[in-house]
Amino acid sequence: MSELALGIDIGGTYTKFGYVDKDGNILAEGKLQTFGHASLQAYLQELNQKLDVLEQSLSGYTLKGIGIGAPNANIYKGTIEHAPNLEWKGIVPFVEEFKKFRDYPVTITNDANAAAIGEMVFGAARGMKHFIVITLGTGLGSGIVVDGKLVYGADGFAGELGHVIAIEGGRMCSSGKRGCLEAYVSATGICRTVFELLSDAIVDSPLRDYSYRELTSKTIYEAAVRGDYIASQAFEYTGNILGRKLADFVAATSPEAIFIFGGLAGAGDLLLKPVRKSFEKYLFNVYNKDNIAIRLSGLGEKSAAILGASALVWEKEKTDQKSKRQGSATSPVRIDQP
Amino acid sequence: MSELALGIDIGGTYTKFGYVDKDGNILAEGKLQTFGHASLQAYLQELNQKLDVLEQSLSGYTLKGIGIGAPNANIYKGTIEHAPNLEWKGIVPFVEEFKKFRDYPVTITNDANAAAIGEMVFGAARGMKHFIVITLGTGLGSGIVVDGKLVYGADGFAGELGHVIAIEGGRMCSSGKRGCLEAYVSATGICRTVFELLSDAIVDSPLRDYSYRELTSKTIYEAAVRGDYIASQAFEYTGNILGRKLADFVAATSPEAIFIFGGLAGAGDLLLKPVRKSFEKYLFNVYNKDNIAIRLSGLGEKSAAILGASALVWEKEKTDQKSKRQGSATSPVRIDQP
Repeated sequence: MSELALGIDIGGTYTKFGYVDKDGNILAEGKLQTFGHASLQAYLQELNQKLDVLEQSLSGYTLKGIGIGAPNANIYKGTIEHAPNLEWKGIVPFVEEFKKFRDYPVTITNDANAAAIGEMVFGAARGMKHFIVITLGTGLGSGIVVDGKLVYGADGFAGELGHVIAIEGGRMCSSGKRGCLEAYVSATGICRTVFELLSDAIVDSPLRDYSYRELTSKTIYEAAVRGDYIASQAFEYTGNILGRKLADFVAATSPEAIFIFGGLAGAGDLLLKPVRKSFEKYLFNVYNKDNIAIRLSGLGEKSAAILGASALVWEKEKTDQKSKRQGSATSPVRIDQP
Repeated sequence: MSELALGIDIGGTYTKFGYVDKDGNILAEGKLQTFGHASLQAYLQELNQKLDVLEQSLSGYTLKGIGIGAPNANIYKGTIEHAPNLEWKGIVPFVEEFKKFRDYPVTITNDANAAAIGEMVFGAARGMKHFIVITLGTGLGSGIVVDGKLVYGADGFAGELGHVIAIEGGRMCSSGKRGCLEAYVSATGICRTVFELLSDAIVDSPLRDYSYRELTSKTIYEAAVRGDYIASQAFEYTGNILGRKLADFVAATSPEAIFIFGGLAGAGDLLLKPVRKSFEKYLFNVYNKDNIAIRLSGLGEKSAAILGASALVWEKEKTDQKSKRQGSATSPVRIDQP
């Protein structure tokens, strides 16, 4: 009987889920709104009802396990902690509550870590031992892989590169600190940069028609493609900062590649060119710049989040197989006998 | 028969070596000048003659292996590459040349990595899985441990945290870049800071009697202890920058402790207090500051370099025992039958 992994990606707006086989094929998928439920239990009830329906179309498979990607999730504790974009406040024992509905092996981690494992299992990092994934959405997330394993660190919160300082004393960040990388390099960050540039320059720009609330990174991208100076400068500025910080990250774990993932990565060369230029300028010369690739993610944007979450299960299997030789393991459960 | 490891620490001035048992006892030690030899071969000849003499006092032991700490050493290739403070230029195949004199299993890595492994095997990091060692000598080196293993990265040069940017567009660094952490936080860095402060302030200070060439970090320390304003400010400034960057490093690998090692660490609280204050100010709030210790190294300054280098052998044994279960191993060689 073929094995499947259930991948669940919890975003601020939607929760997306899909049943994925070992080759990264999504056999069934669905979604629900993450917000607007009376309680976590009400949300879990709706999610699990939808999963029940989906599973009926899938009998004959066994479910290997469940992988969940969520903001501020902690793999060690199975919790979601103080996630600013979710309605559930404080420290939420998510896995414990989820298991009341579906008692399978569950692994939860933050969405950027899931993206990194997705890249390793299904994407462009297959076979790589040392790489970093940077996710550029509303914020900037990261997953760091060392020796073929995701780095979780002492407390499960390793890889928060969005909150290293990019500019000392710089912009206020939602973290409460000033100058965080994410305040510059993210969908929100590039909008803030446009407003800074509009205030500084006197050249005309179609971007002068947008309020702060209206402006999106997509609008900036489209303006840049049409040759708008302010928009082009915004990508240049964003890329410069990201490239400089990537050079710093290389000095920590010396990866063979850095993958850029998420909405803003859709800008392609408009972002990657200044990133590369600045990266090479700031890279410490013991590193051979030609050996370090900076590329777009190898996972399709549309299904990347589900693939990433489901990859947690396949990655865990690999780890379990290693530790099985030294005792302990998990066994799959038939999908029609939950 | 008891096993020993030979630890060799190659510094710009002296090469120190010692035979160390599993508990970190140095049973015999010696040193020679690193510079002033006609060739690498001449240096190796003198080193190995001294080792021969030392070994005669140690018969009855087996030699498990040799660990070498050296600037810019690459564990994957067994090379020392472009080390600015050594006479051997370019890429030196050190292990290959060394083995012509002593054909034992040899592991070489940079001195800061050796210090980190020394801390893990013999020092204050025993039992820790995630920690960072920062070495403050002429420059700033670092060794990063993740999941109980030193991070070498794709090319063997991970952990070059001295060359992340501390101040964008700041001081020139020997790396050819501007604003590197090491240009501020190191024995040299704090001297540069004193000269900057002397140029900026108008208060009197005994440090106004020293030329740039004369001034040492020890002199600054002694002036600070006696209450000199400039010297105290120099430690404050150095500690501020280090603390801010340590907070960034936590966001990468989330260690449980950071150990400060080397000459400047001798300043103790004079350095650690501003480091801690700035670290807590800049630490991203998903991390619990109370769970992250910043401490002085647990290895005595005097023998730390030899212990660190020898620890490479014991650490390698641990790794080999793991991989032995999956094939491959190294066996010890009797010390009186080289």
